Amino acid sequence: MSQKHFFSGVSRRALLSALAVLPAFSESLLSMSARAQTAASSDPLPSWNDGPSKQAITGFVARVIQQGGPDFVPPAERIATFDNDGTLWVEHPMYTQLAFVLDRVKVLAPQHPEWANTQPFKAVLEGDMKTLMAAGERGLVELGMATHAGMSTVEFEKIVTDWLATARHPRFKRLYTELSYLPMIELLAYLRANGFKTFIVSGGGVEFMRPWTERIYGVPPEQVVGSSIKTKFQIRDGQPELFRLPEVNFIDDGPGKPVGINEFIGRRPIAAFGNSDGDLEMLQWTTLTGGARLGLIVHHTDAEREYAYDRETEFGRLDKALDAAAANKWIVADMKNDWKRIFALE
Amino acid sequence: MSQKHFFSGVSRRALLSALAVLPAFSESLLSMSARAQTAASSDPLPSWNDGPSKQAITGFVARVIQQGGPDFVPPAERIATFDNDGTLWVEHPMYTQLAFVLDRVKVLAPQHPEWANTQPFKAVLEGDMKTLMAAGERGLVELGMATHAGMSTVEFEKIVTDWLATARHPRFKRLYTELSYLPMIELLAYLRANGFKTFIVSGGGVEFMRPWTERIYGVPPEQVVGSSIKTKFQIRDGQPELFRLPEVNFIDDGPGKPVGINEFIGRRPIAAFGNSDGDLEMLQWTTLTGGARLGLIVHHTDAEREYAYDRETEFGRLDKALDAAAANKWIVADMKNDWKRIFALE
Repeated sequence: MSQKHFFSGVSRRALLSALAVLPAFSESLLSMSARAQTAASSDPLPSWNDGPSKQAITGFVARVIQQGGPDFVPPAERIATFDNDGTLWVEHPMYTQLAFVLDRVKVLAPQHPEWANTQPFKAVLEGDMKTLMAAGERGLVELGMATHAGMSTVEFEKIVTDWLATARHPRFKRLYTELSYLPMIELLAYLRANGFKTFIVSGGGVEFMRPWTERIYGVPPEQVVGSSIKTKFQIRDGQPELFRLPEVNFIDDGPGKPVGINEFIGRRPIAAFGNSDGDLEMLQWTTLTGGARLGLIVHHTDAEREYAYDRETEFGRLDKALDAAAANKWIVADMKNDWKRIFALE
Repeated sequence: MSQKHFFSGVSRRALLSALAVLPAFSESLLSMSARAQTAASSDPLPSWNDGPSKQAITGFVARVIQQGGPDFVPPAERIATFDNDGTLWVEHPMYTQLAFVLDRVKVLAPQHPEWANTQPFKAVLEGDMKTLMAAGERGLVELGMATHAGMSTVEFEKIVTDWLATARHPRFKRLYTELSYLPMIELLAYLRANGFKTFIVSGGGVEFMRPWTERIYGVPPEQVVGSSIKTKFQIRDGQPELFRLPEVNFIDDGPGKPVGINEFIGRRPIAAFGNSDGDLEMLQWTTLTGGARLGLIVHHTDAEREYAYDRETEFGRLDKALDAAAANKWIVADMKNDWKRIFALE
């Protein structure tokens, strides 16, 4: 399904009206929900419809926490890894970090008059997405470096935080952090309430995520793995700082995900959650081994409430991993049918 | 002080006799000790003699945990980072990992007849330390790659675990893990009992440490940062594995330590513990900022019970960082006078 189709096929007015009547989802509600899950009588995943996906999740958790049971896993080994873009928050019509990059190019353009005649900057400034996408990965890396390097880590964190506090998603007109998925936030809390340690393992930039993952997902910075550029330690005016360099350090995507999991976590997960081919190797690494294991793919099937895409899309393509899901008995969570609500909308 | 001096100046017999009468230090004792520290009446650091070092540590902790106080730090931000070699366990007469490398070269030699005539392997096989050290960093990297790469991460973990279960320190005739420092293990537990999250940030190989840091230090694999080589994800006989490649990935030493702290932890520590110039930048990054901060250097001053070295040594040189300690008010813990006992000897 093409990008164009998404925009033409959805009534924005209907959606925004529906969203307007949803109650705000506060942090205190979230922590209440996490606490409530320890009581066996309550529903640990209220935003998930009853069905095979929900049953597979709760069944897996029940098996691994049952002391003395055949599938028992000690708490220290209950590692769960979550992709971010498209798994925990919205990734269409483009990755949020790419929207950030485009905005930053516009903000920085006055300091770079040469960009008016240099691709791919020219395309960004003219809103020419076709030329921009044609610049490919190399073009995107160039834009990434121009916007993500050349400042200290402290300065970059402030830039990210300020942007996320004001930038709005083009369709939903909401802060991006409000467009995280409530059923997945419940799932994170549910796993933690059952002794799991939850990690994010994302292709996105690690320093683009760490400033807000604790507030939104309950995942602290030290449990966020992502792509990164190199930094350099230096003393400036008597104060130490880490200066961000225009050089790729690590790409946490595809086969890079198990590599990153090993490098940053040093334990093999027993549960992994993704939504695209970039998560294939993480799901293989997690599930293709002995013992009870859980692999889950979020399938974007709801063009009305969110987006519908899989094998044909620029962002979050789900093709090989969808085939692998069937072969490996990974859960394919159908957003349209499995999720009562989509967004956290804090 | 030269290496030679250490060996001639110490009576091994006297030492080993003394060690023989010390009670074994079991894990259950350790956890009892950690629990006991929550009671205000007990001494949280029984292996530390009373004095300025101990007072500075407990004073710092009291300040940062005092809710409403001027130096209060929320638990999530109570990050403490510890060097390993020479800070948590013995690093003389050579880094333990180097002893491992030399042993591995000998084990692997029958499969590499060419090593008999190739440096630096020849020097290792002939026990010619002088030629070996003359091969410098490049020679050591070559030995490291030959012994640390070419197998899966699972296979390497088994090699490390098997070696540490039997290899003995040349002077103390003890397992290396028994030669971790009891006062530092108490300090780790004391900090954790006060809401700190403790990390290891070591120049040593991360996969050489992770198999045992939880058992010995109470620090789980995901809180161990270290040097690493690259790995590659692959499927072999239907099973995914991470294969270790002969290529340096990250050197977690000197200015690499704050870089690694930022990359792997993503928070700035409020307390850091080291013993050599390789820890200088970590200590700067931790302490040269506003708020209550603790920097501590373990000074090896006890040739009788352990070793005495600082500005002149091949392993764990403490020169610039010792000067910086005075300028920056870092605690210099004097092993001879500050520590009642040295080793954990589990």
